[in-house]
Amino acid sequence: MNFKSKIKLGIVGGGQLGRMLIQSAIDFDLEIKSLDPDVFAPCKDVAHEFVNGSLLDYQTVVDFGMNCDIVTIEIENVNLEALFELERIGVKVFPQPSVIALIKDKRIQKKHFQENDIPTAAFKLINNKEEIRQNLDFFPCVNKLGTGGYDGKGVQILRNEKDIDKAFDTLGLIEKLIPFEKELAVVVARNLNGEIKSYPVTEMVFHPEANLVEYLFAPAQIEKTIENAAIKIAENCAKAFGIVGLLAVEMFLTKEGEILVNEVAPRPHNSGHHTQKANAVSQFEQHIRAILNLPLGDTKEHSLAAMVNILGEAGHDGEAIYSGMEEILQISGVHPFLYGKKHTKPFRKMGHVSILDKDFEKLKEKVNFVTETLKVKSK
Amino acid sequence: MNFKSKIKLGIVGGGQLGRMLIQSAIDFDLEIKSLDPDVFAPCKDVAHEFVNGSLLDYQTVVDFGMNCDIVTIEIENVNLEALFELERIGVKVFPQPSVIALIKDKRIQKKHFQENDIPTAAFKLINNKEEIRQNLDFFPCVNKLGTGGYDGKGVQILRNEKDIDKAFDTLGLIEKLIPFEKELAVVVARNLNGEIKSYPVTEMVFHPEANLVEYLFAPAQIEKTIENAAIKIAENCAKAFGIVGLLAVEMFLTKEGEILVNEVAPRPHNSGHHTQKANAVSQFEQHIRAILNLPLGDTKEHSLAAMVNILGEAGHDGEAIYSGMEEILQISGVHPFLYGKKHTKPFRKMGHVSILDKDFEKLKEKVNFVTETLKVKSK
Repeated sequence: MNFKSKIKLGIVGGGQLGRMLIQSAIDFDLEIKSLDPDVFAPCKDVAHEFVNGSLLDYQTVVDFGMNCDIVTIEIENVNLEALFELERIGVKVFPQPSVIALIKDKRIQKKHFQENDIPTAAFKLINNKEEIRQNLDFFPCVNKLGTGGYDGKGVQILRNEKDIDKAFDTLGLIEKLIPFEKELAVVVARNLNGEIKSYPVTEMVFHPEANLVEYLFAPAQIEKTIENAAIKIAENCAKAFGIVGLLAVEMFLTKEGEILVNEVAPRPHNSGHHTQKANAVSQFEQHIRAILNLPLGDTKEHSLAAMVNILGEAGHDGEAIYSGMEEILQISGVHPFLYGKKHTKPFRKMGHVSILDKDFEKLKEKVNFVTETLKVKSK
Repeated sequence: MNFKSKIKLGIVGGGQLGRMLIQSAIDFDLEIKSLDPDVFAPCKDVAHEFVNGSLLDYQTVVDFGMNCDIVTIEIENVNLEALFELERIGVKVFPQPSVIALIKDKRIQKKHFQENDIPTAAFKLINNKEEIRQNLDFFPCVNKLGTGGYDGKGVQILRNEKDIDKAFDTLGLIEKLIPFEKELAVVVARNLNGEIKSYPVTEMVFHPEANLVEYLFAPAQIEKTIENAAIKIAENCAKAFGIVGLLAVEMFLTKEGEILVNEVAPRPHNSGHHTQKANAVSQFEQHIRAILNLPLGDTKEHSLAAMVNILGEAGHDGEAIYSGMEEILQISGVHPFLYGKKHTKPFRKMGHVSILDKDFEKLKEKVNFVTETLKVKSK
């Protein structure tokens, strides 16, 4: 196959995922356009062309994508009709708008799991707060917004009747709260030829306040049979959605050893960030390969790895400075990735740190050291 | 130490080395300015700000660098007086102009080797072609331009008196032709604190026609004592020059097991490209760490690696297409890096391919397959 450089790739969304996609896209000499409503978006200065505009406005998205060869997304909350229109006029859109439509509304996503025999927690679709009250037998439950949730927002636990006051009073769902043993994720890639490759299973640990992934390890500390089952389920998801691009599949491992899919994201994902340093082909390069319909890269890790999100310190709001940076860089295998956000605020994702070590105990020591040492403060 | 993001880094030179520096600099949230005389330079679309102008014009370089926090280079052939002026007015310039001055003129570089007991081939400084004729006892020899040579240009072998016709008739040098066993290189980094780290020794194989590195392997297939000696010499070079940043040290291993330094380059180097995939910290990230005076990264490789330059095919001149790209990407461990050059011409460096394999014989098979398969043609 002849490969033409200067393929024009439009990325809808100009956040950190887009930024890291661009770093990988440079290797393939793609010309990158980025769209974001924030004039200070992480992609602003690294894209070849940055367009400032709404991801939700039909005409803005159509105009943005129409002279691209390929359009992709780095966030699901975009104007879907515009992506369908781009596809109709001959622009390649990956992941496909029809796939994004199945995922961006968690109500539809859950139904798609059900229809395709993907194991998932029991759930009920909910139209308003009142309907939640009618399902007390479902408690304790997780209440999710259908659309618009991101980074832990739009998801909350309802433990008892009193919690209904804080429930979302709009289209959403409730699902049985799973008392899980572990939370796992698999990033799987699928190209147009149908080739599928999965990264090793990652194991996530959440920050109790911010409801964000605080750190993860990969490969997960699980039995081989569980690992194989998780990868099988993730690949079945990729097939069930027919996605072209990356699909990040978040799963619960129950105390009984059952795996239930929590949710999926059709893009690079926090749970795959460690692949930038622990794998020769990162999830970002893999996404590029998938949407260009190139052969997928090897997903074998060369080291045990951890990933820590760099979150803005509580009580700090303003221009960011990073204290402890020199100290963490003295540790072998510690690699920061800053997202280019000038201003910090409490719990804002400002970057992440990849951490490598062959030994699991030493890896955890490094994770603790990084977490305790690196702080994002305001000047 | 508090780390401030948005440090303004100016890179003098907008070629592929600058391009790959930028990819790494994004992780540290640097703001990158790039200067190059070519409006289609590889850095043009990936720098935050691209300035089109001469690297050799005093005022252009001063104006370019004066609002930067740090200025670095990706090519030695720049206006040095301008870099000295920038340093004088308080801009950090790394590598230091005084170091570049010792390296960019190969006559001064050789004398510096001599004065610092760095082993190197015997040489004579030459002012014109006529002086070469007076040194026939030095033949066969290598005739080098003092300044302006690049990518194999400015260096030629004079085997006998007849070759004097093609000798450079200007300031340069001749040195004894070393019938070497192997050509080796070590990329070493030194930060302002004086911390020094070296990558494993690489072994280079040259293309017979183009006088460019055709492929390399790392770590080199040499005895441990030779390896240690090569690294020691490279680190002595870094100290002798007092460089802050990367120093690539090219060496000959003679048939007698002696190591002689051929030449050094004060920047990322072709012989370190494989570190992008074979090491957690690439030479580009290491250069960034060094010039920011951050702790240097681990240089241990996680895999045996090779690097093949992607050169324009003979007979092809025009807009580039890459034939065989899909085929090479099917091979595990094969990773192309395209430099963003729209037009190919014979032997033009269009990119490189990093190749990983734990097994040396399999690595060589992959090198051969890539070399035979990937071709840069014009449309």
